[in-house]
Amino acid sequence: MTLTKSTAELYTNYKSRLQKIADVKYSAAVLQWDQETYLPPKGAGFRGQQLATLSEIAHEWFIDPSLGQLLEELQSRGDLADDERRNVELSLEDYNKQKKFTPAFIRKLSEATSRSFHTWIQARNANSFDVFRNDLEQLVQLKKEEAAIAGYEHHPYNALLDQYEKGSTVALLDRVFSEIRNPLRELLQKIGARPQIDDHFLHSHFPQQQQWDFGMRLIKQLGFDFEAGRQDLSEHPFTTNFSSQDVRITTRVDENDFNHMTWSCIHETGHALYEQGLPAEEYGLPLGEYASLSIHESQSRLWENNVGRSLSWWTSVYPSLQQTFPQQLKDASAEQFYKAINKVQPSLIRTEADEVSYHFHVMIRYELEKNLINGTISVADIPAWWNESYNTWLGVKVPDDKRGCLQDVHWSHGSFGYFPTYSLGSFYAAQMFSAAENQIPTLRQSIGSGDTSTLLAWLREKVHRHGRRYISEELCQQATGKTLDIQYFLSYLLDKYRNIYNF
Amino acid sequence: MTLTKSTAELYTNYKSRLQKIADVKYSAAVLQWDQETYLPPKGAGFRGQQLATLSEIAHEWFIDPSLGQLLEELQSRGDLADDERRNVELSLEDYNKQKKFTPAFIRKLSEATSRSFHTWIQARNANSFDVFRNDLEQLVQLKKEEAAIAGYEHHPYNALLDQYEKGSTVALLDRVFSEIRNPLRELLQKIGARPQIDDHFLHSHFPQQQQWDFGMRLIKQLGFDFEAGRQDLSEHPFTTNFSSQDVRITTRVDENDFNHMTWSCIHETGHALYEQGLPAEEYGLPLGEYASLSIHESQSRLWENNVGRSLSWWTSVYPSLQQTFPQQLKDASAEQFYKAINKVQPSLIRTEADEVSYHFHVMIRYELEKNLINGTISVADIPAWWNESYNTWLGVKVPDDKRGCLQDVHWSHGSFGYFPTYSLGSFYAAQMFSAAENQIPTLRQSIGSGDTSTLLAWLREKVHRHGRRYISEELCQQATGKTLDIQYFLSYLLDKYRNIYNF
Repeated sequence: MTLTKSTAELYTNYKSRLQKIADVKYSAAVLQWDQETYLPPKGAGFRGQQLATLSEIAHEWFIDPSLGQLLEELQSRGDLADDERRNVELSLEDYNKQKKFTPAFIRKLSEATSRSFHTWIQARNANSFDVFRNDLEQLVQLKKEEAAIAGYEHHPYNALLDQYEKGSTVALLDRVFSEIRNPLRELLQKIGARPQIDDHFLHSHFPQQQQWDFGMRLIKQLGFDFEAGRQDLSEHPFTTNFSSQDVRITTRVDENDFNHMTWSCIHETGHALYEQGLPAEEYGLPLGEYASLSIHESQSRLWENNVGRSLSWWTSVYPSLQQTFPQQLKDASAEQFYKAINKVQPSLIRTEADEVSYHFHVMIRYELEKNLINGTISVADIPAWWNESYNTWLGVKVPDDKRGCLQDVHWSHGSFGYFPTYSLGSFYAAQMFSAAENQIPTLRQSIGSGDTSTLLAWLREKVHRHGRRYISEELCQQATGKTLDIQYFLSYLLDKYRNIYNF
Repeated sequence: MTLTKSTAELYTNYKSRLQKIADVKYSAAVLQWDQETYLPPKGAGFRGQQLATLSEIAHEWFIDPSLGQLLEELQSRGDLADDERRNVELSLEDYNKQKKFTPAFIRKLSEATSRSFHTWIQARNANSFDVFRNDLEQLVQLKKEEAAIAGYEHHPYNALLDQYEKGSTVALLDRVFSEIRNPLRELLQKIGARPQIDDHFLHSHFPQQQQWDFGMRLIKQLGFDFEAGRQDLSEHPFTTNFSSQDVRITTRVDENDFNHMTWSCIHETGHALYEQGLPAEEYGLPLGEYASLSIHESQSRLWENNVGRSLSWWTSVYPSLQQTFPQQLKDASAEQFYKAINKVQPSLIRTEADEVSYHFHVMIRYELEKNLINGTISVADIPAWWNESYNTWLGVKVPDDKRGCLQDVHWSHGSFGYFPTYSLGSFYAAQMFSAAENQIPTLRQSIGSGDTSTLLAWLREKVHRHGRRYISEELCQQATGKTLDIQYFLSYLLDKYRNIYNF
């Protein structure tokens, strides 16, 4: 039947089906955003039901065999434009992955994660891993099933890694992490041998409203388009979007710690600038989506760290910060401030970690997940394994589960294989930032004057506008001239901390 | 096939289908709420698309013939409980109404109203009815088609009235309005012959934040459950809900007019208390829905007017208001305040009208719509007809279209037949409030002490918990002992204004 239709007709049909699926997925995202920002407590029950129904619709529409046939037919046509061909190819890839999962399995997973999320909260409140253990065992079991259904080579964890980062494998990550482990450990030791930075002034009292106002100014200055997005408060900062024209970020404010609000604002703005830079005309289609989670994270980390923790940028921004908090910062120079925000101190909590020790948090989780999924470690062993690893790699004693293996929400969401993308994001960020510096001779100077528009334009050109056209490594190659090379990241850290800690 | 299934199985199936449809409709309501409160401007385009997709899903699921068969089968079963039987009966009624409309017609109407809404905005900005005229002509044409598709007796407008208020007809409304028209006119004349009330102090400067805080305290005091709802700001105040456990109200604040915020807070709280009082266990089913628009409006107006513009209630609330705005209200006693908030003054704008002249605004629209739908008046005649009616009935000269026939959003939404429910709401409110006063001897006293919980409990018992079980007139009969009798409303007005204006 479809044979009689023109390619243009078929493509229009494909586009309209994908866009309607996107409408439903983005609607779910609105409901989730509201859930994290404004939902009154009693609304949670029905909200869960509403979200489940929307997810079910999107999944059922996407795995409809008639969509598969349409995609196959389009792929066989010789007269698609390049962009169209790439969209169809990626959609067919997604279709072939998704159709393996029955709605029943999706529902089972969705129910298990809803339940686990609540149990995880309870476990945290009780500060006891045992409360979470049963649900986590079921989830690990389901993720093993998921890996089996998805299919994999060599290691079941590969199936899960691939969901977040296409092409990512245990072999690849083992190599990357083995290259980074010792240099980072040596760096930590060098820093540890030096006198510690004084950052006490970051922990004075910073009133909520002034922090919020300062954060809003920062975001605007970095290029966030408030006509196509907004910022709100939430318990845990996040970025979501309902099209590239409506990107929402959130932050949280701790009146006794200036760091939380500031770097979550900059980090989420990095994510948001990427989403706002995706091509609106590809709404709902692969080319309108982000390339991968590691590339997404590279954008947030490039802004958070390579820009937002740099001396040159703060040289221009610090005076206005000092004006906002004259009492709190009266004794700190821009350089002292710069050193304070870059203080390295191995600690218990991943989200509060410095740029060096952060990756040990990720590597510990990576090793743990890998071994959970192939059964080498059992769920019951997690706390002991966790605590020992933190002692070995970061030299910190984990006092309880809340500050240990219960600290992250990810597992309760069913997200296994997600953490490595955080480290990859930092590595890509350093390489991209270095490439931008090389390609734009005036970059340092403009960042030093507080103007990051050239950098944003470069990222728009090299990364954002391509959507999902290239996988991470291709995108990295095109933007920087080579595939991932962690020497960029290591040099960045070494230069930075040699200067800060004088070694 | 269904014959082999037990009634319980069939009912569970019915319930789950209806609840999934409700999930989709309530999801759309979340998107609409966000659109009115927080949506960044560039997000509007895709948001419209997302909303259209959700409406389409809900409509398609509801008119699925297999749902019709299920409802028919359930209706034929003898072993349904009373509540179940009523749910099925009402759903079948809805199904038989909805299935007449093809998805194509729904889409055409939805597109026309989306377009008209934007044109209406443009026409208001240009202050020119002509800008709106073409779109309005198309809409009126579509509403005529809609009436023809829905079917009606005697008058095509009956088909439209029935959508908002089951059983409402031109014959009935003609009778009600003819009973009310002269008494209200005489009342206006009596008031007009008396010295006017001084309300200048309501128009001093009332800072935004203090108004907001005061409004929030009022809402809480009236019994709004903030665990199951919230208030936000929007351009036009409204109430929406995503279950009885998540009811959202909005307000707007005018720093130069204390009235807007206060009575929109109380009005929307009236709507919200009704929604919060609907049975949560009937989520998605008719018995979990409100009875009719006039009953919904009776709840908002009972709180806004019968409570919120009464001397006894303000006697207890006024001291805290005076504390909030000591400068602005220092020279006004509670009684002067009471008179000021009840000042009667025929004017141009419906939403700002007093309790007496308000109903002329409704009657003018009712006559106009009735004659538009049967073709007696053409769209081109609207401005002249409007301006003449305002002159005749309210004695005011309409200076331009913006303050004339372009003032309401309703037509641009395709809402023809909606306005009469506003008047019916006031009439039912007066009758219900009178019944409550008779049935609860202590009511006046508790309201006089600022405690409205007894009143709320009475409304919960007599109105809220029944959902859609009864039509308006049955509900009125059960709550008050008789069907609608506008003498209650007339006596209420006469007593009130005789006292305020001393005639």
